[in-house]
Amino acid sequence: MADFTQLGKNEVFLAFTTYATIVLLKMMFMSSATAFFRVTKKVFINPEDCAHLGKGENAKKYLRTDDSVERVRRAHLNDLENIVPFLGIGLLYALSGPSLSTALLHFRLFVGARIYHTIAYLFAFRQPNRGLAFFVGYGVTFSMAFSLLRNKLYL
Amino acid sequence: MADFTQLGKNEVFLAFTTYATIVLLKMMFMSSATAFFRVTKKVFINPEDCAHLGKGENAKKYLRTDDSVERVRRAHLNDLENIVPFLGIGLLYALSGPSLSTALLHFRLFVGARIYHTIAYLFAFRQPNRGLAFFVGYGVTFSMAFSLLRNKLYL
Amino acid sequence: MADFTQLGKNEVFLAFTTYATIVLLKMMFMSSATAFFRVTKKVFINPEDCAHLGKGENAKKYLRTDDSVERVRRAHLNDLENIVPFLGIGLLYALSGPSLSTALLHFRLFVGARIYHTIAYLFAFRQPNRGLAFFVGYGVTFSMAFSLLRNKLYL
Repeated sequence: MADFTQLGKNEVFLAFTTYATIVLLKMMFMSSATAFFRVTKKVFINPEDCAHLGKGENAKKYLRTDDSVERVRRAHLNDLENIVPFLGIGLLYALSGPSLSTALLHFRLFVGARIYHTIAYLFAFRQPNRGLAFFVGYGVTFSMAFSLLRNKLYL
Repeated sequence: MADFTQLGKNEVFLAFTTYATIVLLKMMFMSSATAFFRVTKKVFINPEDCAHLGKGENAKKYLRTDDSVERVRRAHLNDLENIVPFLGIGLLYALSGPSLSTALLHFRLFVGARIYHTIAYLFAFRQPNRGLAFFVGYGVTFSMAFSLLRNKLYL
Repeated sequence: MADFTQLGKNEVFLAFTTYATIVLLKMMFMSSATAFFRVTKKVFINPEDCAHLGKGENAKKYLRTDDSVERVRRAHLNDLENIVPFLGIGLLYALSGPSLSTALLHFRLFVGARIYHTIAYLFAFRQPNRGLAFFVGYGVTFSMAFSLLRNKLYL
């Protein structure tokens, strides 16, 4: 277990900070992508969002769903479902004193896999591109969880 | 970087604790709001949830969607998509030793923007009310991420 | 407040690490359950996911929704909505120096309630099974938040 008076100089913790921030920024990008497609394709879900496009029935026709928008939203939700466990387990893992090289391998694989997952999702690469990216990220998180529970199960 | 033997007295960390707790309680309120609308409007999504309202076809008519319920659910999902990055990046930012006044500005703006976002969403304020609230919260998180990566990028 | 030079030996923190990891692994299991139902029931949402099942119209018939898959997805989203506040508030609570027995009571109740919630959701137990499980988890998180804000509100 790392010495916490030295957390500012703890390389594993700094590495976690860097990679967690990058993967969260990538996830935040999905919000912008959704907004971009909604505005450029004029596809809205709230009446107040397309009120400027016309009144009454004129505006209502923009309340619809669109494949591109739904695709971005699914990629975003998949991010949430996978990045939340990475953040929680990864933070506890980073604080549990793993070796720097092992930790870096985990963080880099996860962030790389999630970035590839997003590209494969948005451009509809044929499978198993997206599936493999998902399982690499999933496996990395599972490996960190296993390392945590093996070392100090406290029930 | 803060001295971790003093974390209990670290004002930035205490401020993060307070604001993160408040914004998470606000997000938890969305679950109650969804449950409230489902029960008062009798709008359910699982057959077992409206089994007490009747049998067979009588109960099935309550399995439907409703604009108010879907609006709360969208606001809730938007919260998740924005509060998760705030929690992750904000925690690491709070541990990175920023000045108290800068940190308080970030936390207050974010929490205020998200509370206003929820009000604007639930009462369908006309745009750009909700849009601006979203971008303030988004910008605050981005600013903390930028501060983290500028100071200690560790790849 | 705990002494942070001793975090590695801090029993409350070790307990939080263990229970947070378990409940996150449980949440990750929902991704596998969704994938399992999608593949065995041949119910897909992305055209590229069922391209191997045939071409053109033959594949399109697998792009549909299915009650079992939607049920798992709703349970997964409910997990996200409840486990994210637990992770954020629970981490800050674990760092705020509560007594070990009180903290263990909170963590055990939450993890037990969420596991029972998933079982009650997936097997459609009649209400109020799932409702009670939800409210136990919700109440535990609320109790930790209350303890945090009562002790050190810093606005």
